[in-house]
Amino acid sequence: MAYNFSSGPSMMPQEVLHKVHGELLNYSGANMSVMELCARTELFNDITVKSKNLLRDILHIPHNYHILFLHGGATSQFAMVPMNLLGENNRADYFETGLWSQRAIQEAKKYGDVNVVASGRNSKFTLIPEDVKWRFSKKTDYVYYVDNETVSGIEFPFIPDCSDVPLVSDMSSNFLSRPFDINKFGLVFACAQKNLGLAGVTIVVIKDDLVKEASSFVPTMFRYDCHVKHDSKFNTPPIFNWYVVTIMLQWIKDQGGLSVMASLNEEKSNKVYDFIDNSTIYHNSICEKYRSRMNVTFTLPTLELTSQFICEAKANKLYGLDNYFAPGTCRVGLYNSMPISGVDVLLGFMEDFEYKINKKLSNKQ
Amino acid sequence: MAYNFSSGPSMMPQEVLHKVHGELLNYSGANMSVMELCARTELFNDITVKSKNLLRDILHIPHNYHILFLHGGATSQFAMVPMNLLGENNRADYFETGLWSQRAIQEAKKYGDVNVVASGRNSKFTLIPEDVKWRFSKKTDYVYYVDNETVSGIEFPFIPDCSDVPLVSDMSSNFLSRPFDINKFGLVFACAQKNLGLAGVTIVVIKDDLVKEASSFVPTMFRYDCHVKHDSKFNTPPIFNWYVVTIMLQWIKDQGGLSVMASLNEEKSNKVYDFIDNSTIYHNSICEKYRSRMNVTFTLPTLELTSQFICEAKANKLYGLDNYFAPGTCRVGLYNSMPISGVDVLLGFMEDFEYKINKKLSNKQ
Repeated sequence: MAYNFSSGPSMMPQEVLHKVHGELLNYSGANMSVMELCARTELFNDITVKSKNLLRDILHIPHNYHILFLHGGATSQFAMVPMNLLGENNRADYFETGLWSQRAIQEAKKYGDVNVVASGRNSKFTLIPEDVKWRFSKKTDYVYYVDNETVSGIEFPFIPDCSDVPLVSDMSSNFLSRPFDINKFGLVFACAQKNLGLAGVTIVVIKDDLVKEASSFVPTMFRYDCHVKHDSKFNTPPIFNWYVVTIMLQWIKDQGGLSVMASLNEEKSNKVYDFIDNSTIYHNSICEKYRSRMNVTFTLPTLELTSQFICEAKANKLYGLDNYFAPGTCRVGLYNSMPISGVDVLLGFMEDFEYKINKKLSNKQ
Repeated sequence: MAYNFSSGPSMMPQEVLHKVHGELLNYSGANMSVMELCARTELFNDITVKSKNLLRDILHIPHNYHILFLHGGATSQFAMVPMNLLGENNRADYFETGLWSQRAIQEAKKYGDVNVVASGRNSKFTLIPEDVKWRFSKKTDYVYYVDNETVSGIEFPFIPDCSDVPLVSDMSSNFLSRPFDINKFGLVFACAQKNLGLAGVTIVVIKDDLVKEASSFVPTMFRYDCHVKHDSKFNTPPIFNWYVVTIMLQWIKDQGGLSVMASLNEEKSNKVYDFIDNSTIYHNSICEKYRSRMNVTFTLPTLELTSQFICEAKANKLYGLDNYFAPGTCRVGLYNSMPISGVDVLLGFMEDFEYKINKKLSNKQ
């Protein structure tokens, strides 16, 4: 068995893989593959209805929110959010908590003024600044934050309170990993390849009062109003990717929904943090209450040991433990589909590696 | 056996479906699915290299052209082309030959002046105006045309000559269906779901002198220079969709490449046009030399007969014969993957239907 601990695309549950495999050549008795389904067919329409119903059910989404399945990855949302939501204030408030919020800030600055409410930059993104330090604008069109930052591995343990200003969250890396109150948000988006499927489709949940006619310079494909009007079918959607999300949503529901996901994800991350905190060679630097349940980051004493660790892990079919955007550090992706058995195998390997290194060191002394 | 004659997503070759199915649960011995591959893995990198090499080989693309695999569908290109290629003239020349060029014109008008070189509007898009009627601008940044229009079913039988102005073509519905000289183009784009895979990935072939820094208002995801710089991996690409294109490209090569595709596509469309031209109830209105080899359109004497035809075809597992954007008319999609046997089954059904209708009419008289 191989385990993929990368920051995404993540591994997928065996049940989901086998379901997709089982019906790949003949979907629903139609003698066609889902990959061949036309976007205007009843069969695909049934998939879209089912996926939205499942998501509404799992996340308790009321009917004043639209659910969109879009092309372009979450990175497209970095532009779509300001292009569509900046309004009379031409100003938005952003939390700067790591790489992904920085990228979103950079993109938003193209279209309006950005006020940084709070920044974790001085603490090297190891914490989320205390709320007494937050500086909201007097007038702003929305407040934006990244619920989980994958690079340093920090996560909001609460939903920021910004009174009646629309709250926007990039939940790409922790969407559907725990329950949350969607009613507190104006817009939430997430790419699928972490907790709910494969790369190539992005889910947007948007409150209906935020769906307005966009400025004329906004590309049609970047207009939420267009996608709402056409039920995410203005152009041909990524049909197969959408279908796989539907299978994943059914799997999440079958497992017991978001409370079960949350307790499994907590159990997995607690195991890894406990192990690291009690180890002599692995170190996590994130302030305890902001530690991510999705991405556990750690360092080893030297770059050589880090390389050796990643290399030996790979030889043991433990993949994706390098941190692409923070070379020389390690990262464990623990998304919904990572089974507890995968964590146990990883910790067994880490323990053996630690023992071996310590033995070598004591032999040298 | 079911046949999908829709305008896309199209059916896929059995060999491709079985190849994807066969390695879906264990790609290349990695004990992982392609759906789970991280974008930074060697395995995925190998896929991207292979796909580009295959495409260069099949289409004889020289090395001063970049090949991009992008999110967003071809519709995103309607904005990306003007956003990136409009320059000092802030003007582009467009051929108006049907729905897809009209949509592209509408989008381009947001970003600059559009000159319509020639329009088939007066002839209800049944022909491409003769070149003596073309009116190019004195100064223009590029010339744009849609090589095949799927709604009315017309296709350029030649590459328009616009001297040294960069030529851009939307080849979404006929890319890789016949050989063409890429050196005559500045940029060619095509979504995958017609002739080369499934929905969710779009291929752009762009000449290197057109890759320039885009204006600051262009969303990062809409910048060709960004995607060239990051080799289409600025954000997580649609990995699985890209992989399927690679399998399709290998299939095209194995069949004998574009000359074989071209002769098969000609044989299929000739069969259908010959049948229609000799029938008493089916009628195609496109000027003969501009008839599309990809999308054969036709009408029946009444709307009732059209509905009955589509409905009975469906019952015979002949899908997608309705024309979504031209209700009341029919359309036969004949992309690369449609086997000649599918055309034969369709024509057999059309013949039976015609016989039945004529018998009913003669009984009434």
